[in-house]
Amino acid sequence: MSQDRTKLRWNGWGWVAHKDDVAQREDVWSWLATEMGMPALLATPARPLEGLTLPDSKLSLQNRVELSGIVGAAQVRDSAFERAFHALGRSYHDLLRLRAGDLSTAPDAVVYPRGTDEVVAVLALAARHQIAVVPYGGGTSVVGGVTGRRADFPTVIALDLSEMDRVIDVDPVSCTAVVETGIYGPALENALKAKGFTLGHTPQSFEFSTVGGWIAHHGAGQGSTLYGRAQDWLVSAKLATPRGMMETGTFPASAAGPRLNDLIVGSEGVFGVITEATLRVHRLPEVCAYQGYLFRDFQSGAAAIRAATQDGCERVMLRLSDAEETQFLQAYASLGKVKGALSRLGGLYLGLRGFADRPCLLIAGFEGSAEATSKARRRFDALAGHYGALALGGKVGERWRQSRYQAPYLRDPMLDRGVGVDTIETAAGWSKLDALYAATRAALENTIRETVPRDGAHGIVMCHISHSYQDGASLYFTYVFPRAIAGDIEQWKKIKAAATEAIIANGGTLSHHHGIGEDHLPWMVREKGSLGLDVLRAVKTALDPDGIMNPGKLIP
Amino acid sequence: MSQDRTKLRWNGWGWVAHKDDVAQREDVWSWLATEMGMPALLATPARPLEGLTLPDSKLSLQNRVELSGIVGAAQVRDSAFERAFHALGRSYHDLLRLRAGDLSTAPDAVVYPRGTDEVVAVLALAARHQIAVVPYGGGTSVVGGVTGRRADFPTVIALDLSEMDRVIDVDPVSCTAVVETGIYGPALENALKAKGFTLGHTPQSFEFSTVGGWIAHHGAGQGSTLYGRAQDWLVSAKLATPRGMMETGTFPASAAGPRLNDLIVGSEGVFGVITEATLRVHRLPEVCAYQGYLFRDFQSGAAAIRAATQDGCERVMLRLSDAEETQFLQAYASLGKVKGALSRLGGLYLGLRGFADRPCLLIAGFEGSAEATSKARRRFDALAGHYGALALGGKVGERWRQSRYQAPYLRDPMLDRGVGVDTIETAAGWSKLDALYAATRAALENTIRETVPRDGAHGIVMCHISHSYQDGASLYFTYVFPRAIAGDIEQWKKIKAAATEAIIANGGTLSHHHGIGEDHLPWMVREKGSLGLDVLRAVKTALDPDGIMNPGKLIP
Repeated sequence: MSQDRTKLRWNGWGWVAHKDDVAQREDVWSWLATEMGMPALLATPARPLEGLTLPDSKLSLQNRVELSGIVGAAQVRDSAFERAFHALGRSYHDLLRLRAGDLSTAPDAVVYPRGTDEVVAVLALAARHQIAVVPYGGGTSVVGGVTGRRADFPTVIALDLSEMDRVIDVDPVSCTAVVETGIYGPALENALKAKGFTLGHTPQSFEFSTVGGWIAHHGAGQGSTLYGRAQDWLVSAKLATPRGMMETGTFPASAAGPRLNDLIVGSEGVFGVITEATLRVHRLPEVCAYQGYLFRDFQSGAAAIRAATQDGCERVMLRLSDAEETQFLQAYASLGKVKGALSRLGGLYLGLRGFADRPCLLIAGFEGSAEATSKARRRFDALAGHYGALALGGKVGERWRQSRYQAPYLRDPMLDRGVGVDTIETAAGWSKLDALYAATRAALENTIRETVPRDGAHGIVMCHISHSYQDGASLYFTYVFPRAIAGDIEQWKKIKAAATEAIIANGGTLSHHHGIGEDHLPWMVREKGSLGLDVLRAVKTALDPDGIMNPGKLIP
Repeated sequence: MSQDRTKLRWNGWGWVAHKDDVAQREDVWSWLATEMGMPALLATPARPLEGLTLPDSKLSLQNRVELSGIVGAAQVRDSAFERAFHALGRSYHDLLRLRAGDLSTAPDAVVYPRGTDEVVAVLALAARHQIAVVPYGGGTSVVGGVTGRRADFPTVIALDLSEMDRVIDVDPVSCTAVVETGIYGPALENALKAKGFTLGHTPQSFEFSTVGGWIAHHGAGQGSTLYGRAQDWLVSAKLATPRGMMETGTFPASAAGPRLNDLIVGSEGVFGVITEATLRVHRLPEVCAYQGYLFRDFQSGAAAIRAATQDGCERVMLRLSDAEETQFLQAYASLGKVKGALSRLGGLYLGLRGFADRPCLLIAGFEGSAEATSKARRRFDALAGHYGALALGGKVGERWRQSRYQAPYLRDPMLDRGVGVDTIETAAGWSKLDALYAATRAALENTIRETVPRDGAHGIVMCHISHSYQDGASLYFTYVFPRAIAGDIEQWKKIKAAATEAIIANGGTLSHHHGIGEDHLPWMVREKGSLGLDVLRAVKTALDPDGIMNPGKLIP
C-alpha cells in the first residue's frame, strides 16, 4: 500500500525510474544558454549517495529500544538512504545541498508509526528523552519545512507518516471522508474515486505529497477555486502532541469560540502531528473540460480573471501566464517533442504571432455537471471575448492538464547543467497586484543580474496567476538563471531576500501556498507582528512545552 | 451619527418607540394560552428603571480622572440608564433578570472611546489598575456575552464601541471595505450602498448589532449561503489588547502559518477589542427575489436543501421551517393583521390544507444579477418540484424578507404575559441531522413539560434549518412555554441543559452562530477538549496576562 521510499529520488524530484528526456537534448540546453546570455552551460552532476559519509546516528540504544517497543523494530530505520532521503525537503537550495553531498541535517533515525496511538506514544517518549521530532509526509516542502534540524537537542528523528495511509470512512450523505494523513495524493483520489468522490486537491506535488502535508502547509491545489484550499476542505483533524491528543469538532460550521482547526492548518509540525483528518469531498465531476485562451497582455488577462471571480463565474479554475512564461512555454515546446515536460501550445499558437507582441496564455478549467460546466464555459467565453482574448480550444487546455505535474522534473537536469531554478509565490488584493508584480519581477531580474557568474548573463523570470479570489489573487514566479557555482547558496539567498523584500513592501503575503518552513522565518515578524508571534509561541508552549516539535520552523 | 442609546429599550428589544401591536390583542393571548394547555396567562410586567436601585459605582475618582484623560470626561458615563443598559445582553434569562430589576451586573461605568488609540490606552490603564473590561457593541448577545461580570476585579467597565462607527475606506477594485467595528448594521449597509456595495450580513439582530459583535461572536447572517459568515468575509482585523495592537494581514489568502484572523473571529472579547476590520464586500445585487415553497414534510425539505447545496445550486439562501413552526406561523398569521410581527402565509397556504398533514414552509432567496438569479431560481424550482414541493410564489417570500427582523419584538409582550420564549441553535453533518433534530426536540418538549407551572401544560417547540453547507446544516429551535414564575431562571437552566446535552450527544456543536458567552461555558470542554481549552487559555495569557478582558466568558 504505502509508498516504497527507495523508488523515489533521495536528492531530486519524483521517481527514480522517471526518464528525464530533456537531459540529453543538447539543442534545448544550447537554446537555454542563449536565452540567459551564456555561451554554454557547465556540467554540474550530483554526488552519488554511495560516496557520501553521513554523520553518525546519535540515537542511543536505549531510545532505539524504547522506540522499537512502540512501533516495532522494523519501523525504526537508519540506513544511509533513509537518513539521506529525510535530511531535507525539495527546495532549490535543498537540492543544491543534497547534490553537493551535504547530509549534515540527516536525522538520526526515521520512525514509521502505523497509527495515531503510536504517534502519541512516540511524542511522549521524545519529550521525556529530549528527542527532536520532524514530522514528515511526502517531504516535498520547498521552504525548508522538513529539514532534520536538531537545534539544541542531542537526537533528532524524522517521523514518517507514509505508512498511515488508510481511508477510514467515506460518508456519502455528508460528503465527507475520514483519512489517515500519511496518504499520498494518488492513493487518496483512487480510494475516493471508487466511492464516487474526489477531494480535488491537486498541487503540483500531488503525486509525492500527503494529506497531512497539505494541511500542515496551508496547501492550495491548482483547482482551489473549484474545490477550496486546505482551510476550506478540512472539516476537523486529530493532532497528536507531546501533551496528548487534540481533536477538533466535526461540524459544518460552529460559533463555539475560535476555530482550532485554523491553528492546525499551517502549523507545519511545530505544535504536533496531524494524524487523522475529516475532509469535505465532492461527487466526481461529470465533465473536466480545460480550455486555452490567449490574451493580448497580462493586464487584460488579469482583468478577466477578476471579473470572473467577482461576478461569480462559478466552477472555473483560471490560470494566466505572463508574456515571459507564455513565450518560454511556446519556445520550449517549439523545440519539439520534449515529452511530458511542459504544455505545448502547438501550431495554433504559432500561427497567431500577429495577434499581440506579448500574448499571455490562460488555461480555464471547468469541472462539474455537463450542464453547469457548459454554462460556465459559455459565460467565461463571453467574458474572455469581452477582454479581447482569443479562444484556443480544448487541446491546449488538455495538454496543460495532462502535464500539470511534470514541471518539477525539469529541475534535476537543469541542476546537472549549471542552471538554477526556483519559484517564489505570494498573494495580494487586486488593487495591489500590478505594483506587486512589477516590483517582484524587477527584484528578481536585478538580483539575478548581480549574482550571475558572467557579465551580461541574466535570468528568465516568469509569472502566473494561479489562484484567484474575490478580493485578490496569487502571483507565482518561476525564475531560471545561470548558477554561481562557487556560491550558489549565497546567490539563492540574495535573490530570495530581494524578492521577499519587494513582496512585503508591496503588500504581498510571504506565501500563498508553500508555507514558512525555515526559509521565510526572517520575515515572519513582519507578516504576523510581534504580538502575533507571541500568540503562536504561546500555543506551541501549551502543546509542546519542551519544544521538541519540528524545531526551527514556522516560529522565529 | 452614532446610535442614541436612550432611544433603545434597556430591558427589552429594540426601539423604545416600537409599537408592540400584539400586546393588546387578547385573542392572540387566549389562542396562545390554549396552544400551551393553559387556562389563561398571567400579567407579569417589568419593573421600571425608576424604581430600581443600582449598586454603587466602584469606579474610583482617580480611575475616572485617568479614563477621562484618555477619552474625555463626556465619554465616561455612569447614569442609571447607561449602567442598566450595559448590565446584561438580550437573552431570555437576561430579560428575566432585567425585568425583575436585578442590576447586580451593572458595570461601574461605561466608556465610549472614539478611536483605536483610545481603546489601546484604556486597556493599558485597565490592566494597570485591575479594571475588568467588557467590550460592548450592540449588546444583543443571547448567550451572556456582555454580562458586566467583575469576577475578582474591584472595578468593571463596559467599553462601548458604538461611537467608533466610521467607514474608513471602500476599495472598489479589491471589493473590500475598512470599517470601525462599532458601526451598526443599517449604518454600514447605507454607507456601502452609497458606493454600490453590500456586505450582505443580515442576522436577526441586524438593526441593533455591530460589525465587531458579528466578528467576536462568529456571526452568520440569514443570507450566509450567499455572502458568507464572519469567518468568510473578514479579511483582516485590528485587535487592541492589554499588551498593545495585534493586526492580521490583509491578504486574499496566505500560507504564512496559522491564520490569526481565526483566533479573532469568535474571540468574544476575551483576548482584546476588535477596533477595525477589513471586510469582503459585494456589488449590490441587481435582483433580490424571495420565494416560498411548501414541502410535504421536514425530511423532503431538508433533502432538497442538501441536494441544492451539494450539487452547487449557487446564489440561493434556503430556510426551511419544520411542521410545528410552519403551523405556528400560519395560525398566528390567520389571527389576522398582527402587523410586522411574523410572515403571513396568507390565503394561498390556507387553501392548500389538503396538500399534506404537516406541511413545511421553505423560503428561498435569490440575489445577484438578473441572469444568475433567474437561472438559480429555475434550477431550484425544478429541484423543489423533484422533492414534491409546491411553489407558493413571491408574496410569501417577500413578506418573510420584510419582516425578517421583527420576531425578537415578540419577546417583550410575551414576557409581560407570563410566557417564556427562547432559542437554541446548533449545526451538524447531514448524516447526523435527523437524529439531532429528534433528540433536541424531545429534550425541549420533555423538559418544558417537567417545568411548567401546571400539569398538562406544555410548550410549543419549533425548528428551522437556516444555514446550509455542503457537509451539513444548522438547526435553530424556538420554544415558547408557560413560565414557572417563581423559578423562571431555574426553569430556563433545566431546559437549556437538557437540550444542550441532547445536542452534544448527537454530534451537534454548542452553537452555530450565537457563540459561547457565559451560557455555554459548562460544555466547552466537551466541544474543544481539555488541550483545546489549554490553547485558548495560552492565547489569552499571551494577550491579556492580567485577565481583565471580558472575564467569565468563552473560556471556562
